[in-house]
Amino acid sequence: MNRCGVFDSGIGGLSVASELLKSKLFDEIIYFGDTARVPYGNKNESTIIRYSLEALEFLKNFDIDFLVVACNSASSVAIDELRREAGFPVVGVIEAGVKALDAAKTSNILLTGTKRTIQSNKYQNMLLDLGYQNIISVATPLFVPLVEEGITEGKIVDEVFELYFGDIDKSSIDYVILGCTHYPFLAKSFKKHFPNAKLIHSGQAIVELLKNEYGLKEKSDTSIKLFASDNPEELRSKAKEWLNL
Amino acid sequence: MNRCGVFDSGIGGLSVASELLKSKLFDEIIYFGDTARVPYGNKNESTIIRYSLEALEFLKNFDIDFLVVACNSASSVAIDELRREAGFPVVGVIEAGVKALDAAKTSNILLTGTKRTIQSNKYQNMLLDLGYQNIISVATPLFVPLVEEGITEGKIVDEVFELYFGDIDKSSIDYVILGCTHYPFLAKSFKKHFPNAKLIHSGQAIVELLKNEYGLKEKSDTSIKLFASDNPEELRSKAKEWLNL
Repeated sequence: MNRCGVFDSGIGGLSVASELLKSKLFDEIIYFGDTARVPYGNKNESTIIRYSLEALEFLKNFDIDFLVVACNSASSVAIDELRREAGFPVVGVIEAGVKALDAAKTSNILLTGTKRTIQSNKYQNMLLDLGYQNIISVATPLFVPLVEEGITEGKIVDEVFELYFGDIDKSSIDYVILGCTHYPFLAKSFKKHFPNAKLIHSGQAIVELLKNEYGLKEKSDTSIKLFASDNPEELRSKAKEWLNL
Repeated sequence: MNRCGVFDSGIGGLSVASELLKSKLFDEIIYFGDTARVPYGNKNESTIIRYSLEALEFLKNFDIDFLVVACNSASSVAIDELRREAGFPVVGVIEAGVKALDAAKTSNILLTGTKRTIQSNKYQNMLLDLGYQNIISVATPLFVPLVEEGITEGKIVDEVFELYFGDIDKSSIDYVILGCTHYPFLAKSFKKHFPNAKLIHSGQAIVELLKNEYGLKEKSDTSIKLFASDNPEELRSKAKEWLNL
């Protein structure tokens, strides 16, 4: 029996859990969303580290063999501390997203994320270390509340894209990194505004990394258990909708 | 020396603290923003009550004589529990807002607020008890992130107003209750879309209630102390900007 813990600040990480379920790399997935303290994106580094270690403690109760940090803000500031305390492999969406970029080093890469993720420079530094030269990074904090309100296309979304990306030559962008687990729900709008770009989803990137670096193979079936620090019924209802449970 | 504690889930309550400072009804104001767990608007009732009681415990350390609950979500679900534990008067923005409405009972009243505030029906029930008959209530959750991003007028705001109020005969509205401490920052846009409406601000309403029901009089000067459970430097910088400190 191999078990994977998935941790996110809220319900957005279900987009990662969904890909993990489809991939069948684990017998069981234990999802924990810290919905009592969501969002992490605008909180201090030390606070995010403390909350992340508490999530790890909770998930350890389930004898997990892997931890997937599905929250970009936590991945950007708490991954080292989580690795130190875990005693098993810890995989974050940021390194997964960067490794999933199989691109020419001169590609035009647009990185989007919360303020905390962008300001941490974690993504940018990893991209620079790998030799990528043309990186534009834009903090897009309004995308999370829009997705949570179910507004993923249309006039308001187009105006917000204009606000954030008005100065960018959109047709020149080759890759867009969706650096927040909520952003895959805006995929259609990203495709519309960046017609030549390939979108990098955290969930798909995590599955690739687990296969490539840990040699995990497909099992016959994967089950999932869902936990939240607040509003577990909302998590379960969203999971029903998004994961076809 | 009389001291007033002001509690909000985040920095929005500074709009209330600002009016309290101007009114000079207290020698000292102690502001606490629970920024480590903001926002409350989408959290469960029991969680909001627990967080509110923790805020009260913290503020009791300062020997306060009054507590102003500047958070609408907390006012809508935790005011009874706070009164039970406080041992001094506790005043909330909801009752203050309702009492500030000095209007004909047939006036058309538009109530705006977070999902939690609107769903609690606390405002609506108090308005009905006072005999008001024409109440339209609309949850407007995107307003908080817009204000926090500094977007308070222009195309995006107009589109969001259209989304929330598209079906309402705007010129017929006599009063708009700004049922969230962030909303006074959108006053200009509210004025534009509801040209005939008087706006009800929580901060001004609280000052009126303290004068009318507790007979508080103007002092020579009021000082303020600021505390936050996360990012105190951001609270202080916003306070500098908004309170002219």
